Amino acid sequence: MPRRAQVRRPMRPENVHQARLLKLLRDDGPRSRAELGDAVALSKTKVALELDRLVELGLVVGAGLAESRGGRRSSIVQLAPTLRFLAVDIGATSVDVAVTDGRLQVLEHLREPMDVRRGPMPVLDLVLDLVGKLRASGAADDVHGVGVGVPGPVSFREGVPVVPPIMPGWDHFPVRETIGQALGCPVLVDNDANIMALGELHAGTARSVHDFLFVKVGTGIGCGIVVEGSVYRGMSGSAGDIGHMSVEDDGPVCTCGRTGCLEARFGGAALARDAETAARSGRSSLLADRLAEAGALSAADVAVAAASGDPVAVDLVREGGQRLGRVLASLVSFFNPGMVVIGGGVAGLGHALLAEVRGVVYRRSLPLATGNLPIVLSELGADAGIVGGARLISDHVLSA
Amino acid sequence: MPRRAQVRRPMRPENVHQARLLKLLRDDGPRSRAELGDAVALSKTKVALELDRLVELGLVVGAGLAESRGGRRSSIVQLAPTLRFLAVDIGATSVDVAVTDGRLQVLEHLREPMDVRRGPMPVLDLVLDLVGKLRASGAADDVHGVGVGVPGPVSFREGVPVVPPIMPGWDHFPVRETIGQALGCPVLVDNDANIMALGELHAGTARSVHDFLFVKVGTGIGCGIVVEGSVYRGMSGSAGDIGHMSVEDDGPVCTCGRTGCLEARFGGAALARDAETAARSGRSSLLADRLAEAGALSAADVAVAAASGDPVAVDLVREGGQRLGRVLASLVSFFNPGMVVIGGGVAGLGHALLAEVRGVVYRRSLPLATGNLPIVLSELGADAGIVGGARLISDHVLSA
Repeated sequence: MPRRAQVRRPMRPENVHQARLLKLLRDDGPRSRAELGDAVALSKTKVALELDRLVELGLVVGAGLAESRGGRRSSIVQLAPTLRFLAVDIGATSVDVAVTDGRLQVLEHLREPMDVRRGPMPVLDLVLDLVGKLRASGAADDVHGVGVGVPGPVSFREGVPVVPPIMPGWDHFPVRETIGQALGCPVLVDNDANIMALGELHAGTARSVHDFLFVKVGTGIGCGIVVEGSVYRGMSGSAGDIGHMSVEDDGPVCTCGRTGCLEARFGGAALARDAETAARSGRSSLLADRLAEAGALSAADVAVAAASGDPVAVDLVREGGQRLGRVLASLVSFFNPGMVVIGGGVAGLGHALLAEVRGVVYRRSLPLATGNLPIVLSELGADAGIVGGARLISDHVLSA
Repeated sequence: MPRRAQVRRPMRPENVHQARLLKLLRDDGPRSRAELGDAVALSKTKVALELDRLVELGLVVGAGLAESRGGRRSSIVQLAPTLRFLAVDIGATSVDVAVTDGRLQVLEHLREPMDVRRGPMPVLDLVLDLVGKLRASGAADDVHGVGVGVPGPVSFREGVPVVPPIMPGWDHFPVRETIGQALGCPVLVDNDANIMALGELHAGTARSVHDFLFVKVGTGIGCGIVVEGSVYRGMSGSAGDIGHMSVEDDGPVCTCGRTGCLEARFGGAALARDAETAARSGRSSLLADRLAEAGALSAADVAVAAASGDPVAVDLVREGGQRLGRVLASLVSFFNPGMVVIGGGVAGLGHALLAEVRGVVYRRSLPLATGNLPIVLSELGADAGIVGGARLISDHVLSA
């Protein structure tokens, strides 16, 4: 088998029946033809016809015979084992690229530090480099599409970031087109919180939940809104942009240029800033030692300090959790979700953060909205953006 | 034709094709069989079959011949002219009952003052009385269903109000069952803001908008959320309950028992209370005169006083608009709607209120979310709850 970049349009399903069959095989794994027929409520002949065509298209392969259900044994089919999706997770301070199989299982995962503020060219060059490495290893031969997450608002239709506050130089940069032309396959670009929400929906804690919020607290703060199992993006694609919701009348100047934003108070960047101030002022010897050692502090340092009982760090987590909780209390009253999942780097603050957020939400939201509301930490953690990116593009590619 | 209450199950469409045809006839009016065939993308034979069946069911009738499109003239069909829906709008201080034809045009509309706090029995007795009057006039013979709005949270599935703050005595009262048993036809019960949103979607300012917010500011404050042309109700039916979102750390005690709620600051009841306080303190002679005359003040009095330039009334509107605006700014950032419609009694404050709300939202929400965002007053005004009630039940009854 030749191990070189293949530039050709991958095969796609031709009708809604084929699309449904492919998604069943993606989500449930190998199935007998009989089981698939039951699941899609099509006649035996029709299912056989569509499956045969999917085999011809190279999307499905046979996988032996099923146990007998009384009559002739039905043959098992599965997604072609060569089928691959790429997921790209562009964060504020790193780039992740991974390749998955058709069932969205991660096969290889590469991660490099990178400052997104360096602008689109160096970042996308790194992305393509990492893809090249995956291809060189043979893991990414039969790529059917790429799902890309970026930490800012995105025009989903056009595949471009739109005035992203923490991504200077990226405004309207043709991310989808650039990657699509380099790799010769379908590409979708979305806000990272939306993608992480899809990850939790596919393989994380929100698997059985149709309407939920995924709150990402990383360097920035964002929210993925899932309505009836699909990401709700709003009129211009900015739905869920809660980082710039106003939580106070003044406060620190935000990356967006205004004051009073949630993100300016409790993003990872804000937390690092407040921790450094505390370290320099001598209020926390633990944080001061860490600052002297590393030259800078991060949200992760605050998490470690809080876990070991440092009172300044504990206060930072408590105060941030209160602010986040107030915003979420409003959103819970408004949206009445079935679950709230908290993820992203600052979710590393863990149960201390969760306890604060829960306290405020359960106290300030309507009882009817909080009666059965789980507020939980992301199950996938750092992998949410990868699984979600693969899910995003596979939903697209496996549609008719 | 006998003019008495008929208790029988009305006919319903038998499949999705019939349902689509009926909704087209409801929304677009009489159409030729040829036009309907084009619209639903079914074969001529299949459309003829389904329409013939709808005629047999008494839901559709012939209405002459269309202009020729080149060949034989196609016959025109329309919804049966006897088809009727009832809409019931239970407000905090009044009850509206109306009957519409199949196209949701209001034929007769009765309104009686009634305090919802008197509890379900007297209020629903009045509702059934008013329905009786409509029936006695012959306007409501062939009723296919009833859509009911109430000013509080509703479990839509069960058709009961759930812990509604301004409706003491109504918690879990079987509203749907009571009306359904009395009238012998399908009944749906929903929160009034959801129903008013449906009204604007059907025949008001949001006709061409798929994702929007309808903000009702009456005695209480609520919000109808429309996603892809359908009301989004959330996990337990309380989505859009923004009246009890916290806007300050203390403030007046709310009907829900907590402090800091938006509604306790700027519902119609709060506005009337603040106006009476101002009148009694001698700060506004205009409001004092009106109070002496009427014995009590309402939000409508504030509107009149503000329109004639009374500075206290103008301040009340301005301050209320600011508070409402701040909440809406957050919701606009979160939900990125295509439109915000403001309705309900306090919308009578009109353009002064609108100007305040717009100012705050455009200043405090993300530019990407406000770029093309119309913030407008309800077009249907007091009729939004009636048209919406009819739309709610017709969507249900005309479904397969």
